[in-house]
Amino acid sequence: MPVPLNEWTASDIAAAVNRGNVSCEDVTRACLDRIAEREPDVHAWSYCAADQVIAAAKMLDRKGASGPLAGVPFGVKDIIDTADMPTEWGTPIHRGRQPERDAACVALSRKSGGILLGKTVTTEFANLHPGPTRNPHDLTRTPGGSSSGSAAAVADFMVPIAIGTQTTGSTTRPASFCGILGYRPTFGDMRLHGVMEASASVDTLGILARSVEDVALYRDVMLGVPPVAVETPARPPRIGFCRTPSWDAVEPSTRKSLEDAAQTLARAGAEVGDVEMPPDFARLTGVHRWITSFEFARTFTWEIEHHWNEISETLRDGRIKDGLDCSLETYYEMKAVAERCRASVDAMFGDYDVLLTAAALGEAPVGWNAFAGVPVFQYWTVLHVPSITLPVFKGPNGMPVGAQLVARRRDDRGLFAASRWVQQRLT
Amino acid sequence: MPVPLNEWTASDIAAAVNRGNVSCEDVTRACLDRIAEREPDVHAWSYCAADQVIAAAKMLDRKGASGPLAGVPFGVKDIIDTADMPTEWGTPIHRGRQPERDAACVALSRKSGGILLGKTVTTEFANLHPGPTRNPHDLTRTPGGSSSGSAAAVADFMVPIAIGTQTTGSTTRPASFCGILGYRPTFGDMRLHGVMEASASVDTLGILARSVEDVALYRDVMLGVPPVAVETPARPPRIGFCRTPSWDAVEPSTRKSLEDAAQTLARAGAEVGDVEMPPDFARLTGVHRWITSFEFARTFTWEIEHHWNEISETLRDGRIKDGLDCSLETYYEMKAVAERCRASVDAMFGDYDVLLTAAALGEAPVGWNAFAGVPVFQYWTVLHVPSITLPVFKGPNGMPVGAQLVARRRDDRGLFAASRWVQQRLT
Repeated sequence: MPVPLNEWTASDIAAAVNRGNVSCEDVTRACLDRIAEREPDVHAWSYCAADQVIAAAKMLDRKGASGPLAGVPFGVKDIIDTADMPTEWGTPIHRGRQPERDAACVALSRKSGGILLGKTVTTEFANLHPGPTRNPHDLTRTPGGSSSGSAAAVADFMVPIAIGTQTTGSTTRPASFCGILGYRPTFGDMRLHGVMEASASVDTLGILARSVEDVALYRDVMLGVPPVAVETPARPPRIGFCRTPSWDAVEPSTRKSLEDAAQTLARAGAEVGDVEMPPDFARLTGVHRWITSFEFARTFTWEIEHHWNEISETLRDGRIKDGLDCSLETYYEMKAVAERCRASVDAMFGDYDVLLTAAALGEAPVGWNAFAGVPVFQYWTVLHVPSITLPVFKGPNGMPVGAQLVARRRDDRGLFAASRWVQQRLT
Repeated sequence: MPVPLNEWTASDIAAAVNRGNVSCEDVTRACLDRIAEREPDVHAWSYCAADQVIAAAKMLDRKGASGPLAGVPFGVKDIIDTADMPTEWGTPIHRGRQPERDAACVALSRKSGGILLGKTVTTEFANLHPGPTRNPHDLTRTPGGSSSGSAAAVADFMVPIAIGTQTTGSTTRPASFCGILGYRPTFGDMRLHGVMEASASVDTLGILARSVEDVALYRDVMLGVPPVAVETPARPPRIGFCRTPSWDAVEPSTRKSLEDAAQTLARAGAEVGDVEMPPDFARLTGVHRWITSFEFARTFTWEIEHHWNEISETLRDGRIKDGLDCSLETYYEMKAVAERCRASVDAMFGDYDVLLTAAALGEAPVGWNAFAGVPVFQYWTVLHVPSITLPVFKGPNGMPVGAQLVARRRDDRGLFAASRWVQQRLT
């Protein structure tokens, strides 16, 4: 039995379409069929119009699709502008909002031959208040957030790749909950023009995918540079095992999975050792909270002034209240701590190429809004380093759990090489 | 003869309106009258509808205007979104574009009682290709760019304050050419949500105003914090005179003005000494060029793909060509240099509170597009430090020329205190 087209990776689709072996329309129809079958349960999409997408695919077939994403269907988190589909930020305040142009990341994807399948569900303003999306592995559980729909759609074989964003753990956590890869790039590398700002000091795009090769390919597309294949390193990676000051909050089964993984990787030939965060880094949880809240509460001044009653209580009593209460002095103090920590992160890596750490506390909890307040992600987000969730563990209920690898800033390609090595040895 | 309302500072207007001594409508009409008189010559505005503005002023009067900007008319550069006025980015590609909400900085201004008077002319995409604006001091000369309309409108007493942006010298240079203050804040402090991205690694907002007090007031409004008055320092500032590696490009008359100013300030009691940039800093001109070009060319992928023929040759053959030619390796190398220089900028300041440096090569040149390629601003922009242009010199043709003061990151309030001290001694 051949693998159905909707289960192919982006790399395989693009190769087949560029060779003329598969049409854009066939790939697109396979993904749309999967969506038609599963969307009533999963609710991954806030907008997906089959006719519009098939017309786009047919036009690409007529023109002759080419490029690194030729014929690859992709999903886009609904805080990212699209010229031909609404962009509503997960809030009734912006219902029906229709941008006049594509965000940079969408335009780069289309320029490379990708087919925009639709908009994926985001939590309200990419914050905590959930959308309707369920975890495709167990519909009673959360997919995680805020890139809920992007993670669920990729995990459920509706699209091979999707764009998310990350301000706290909004890509790496849903990837762990949904059993796929979730990549957060080096801060500042990918353009955010046309993407809703949440907290510009830490916001990045994110990539949800089902293979390391697809992550690497899509990164180059979104950077607007010629794709470079994932390297095969000359030696096994040097891996620092970093429990972080949040280790006690991680569930025992996840702690055991990570400890076992460290041993497995060492047996496979990797140099593995413990890495401790310097004491100052314990402050990064508070640093993240105050910086993001201060910025968020100012970014959304228009909504706060004109649509207060349409904002969820979760958001009003959480990030907005924190932000309005935060003084400039506190904000500045937190930014200074963040900068000091960033300046010492390379030293913390020492001789290690990558760090191994938790991607989530454990399995996706039961309930839609069960992903709030998880304290293990902020470190890496504030530190501006690239990281990736790899779907390599199972939890006590058979749900997926990810491991997270972290690299130095701008060593994203080294991160991918190490990720492939690690994933091959843990699965 | 009383000073006409359109010549008042923002601080004075807000105080009078809060006391009930002046109505919003009176202030607004005074500014609109000035615009009606002068706009046919100056061309500072891309959108200004008198009826709409008077209606807004009347409504504020009925409600009872209050807040730190009560009744203060302000202008907004036309790359910044406004819910009730078009935002066209200085390009025919986005003619008639109407955002659905206010940018954060606009919403914060209105929340504080300000009255949006209209949109000021920007160069094309805030790059080099000029709009129709003339220098109000001499209509044959450029006002500078890219915040051309904001600078001209404030200089010509059409509004007391206006928002600009800065990616190279787009606030500090037009302020020098137009004889007003131009402030570029510490990078990252002010939210850019709803502001067209040019190069997010260096983009900031900017404030154009006619007094240090107004700059300080408006900064606090845009930060969303309670206003703090400009401090009177206990001792004269310690001032480092920094010629920069671009000193030879500065016109002789400007060099003499700066040398004389350093002596005047020393005689007035300031500790003044020379500050040399470390050798690496000479690379910042190239660093700026490649980082901004790499980012700009990706940000505008949609326009490049769909509207190539509507982009000016200046932009296509300049920043876009540079950006598309720039490799990821070069971009990364330039970012690494920028970060190293930022890490050593505090050491460069040594014991000095602020640095004194050029704000422009000299007077505004004759011709509309005469402000291109000026190599004295990039240093401070790339370094993420706050800076301000003070209108303290005259050039050989009687045109205004500014001096620039620069402070350490997050010492913007120290910069204002030093600025007032310096301005009082040089004028």
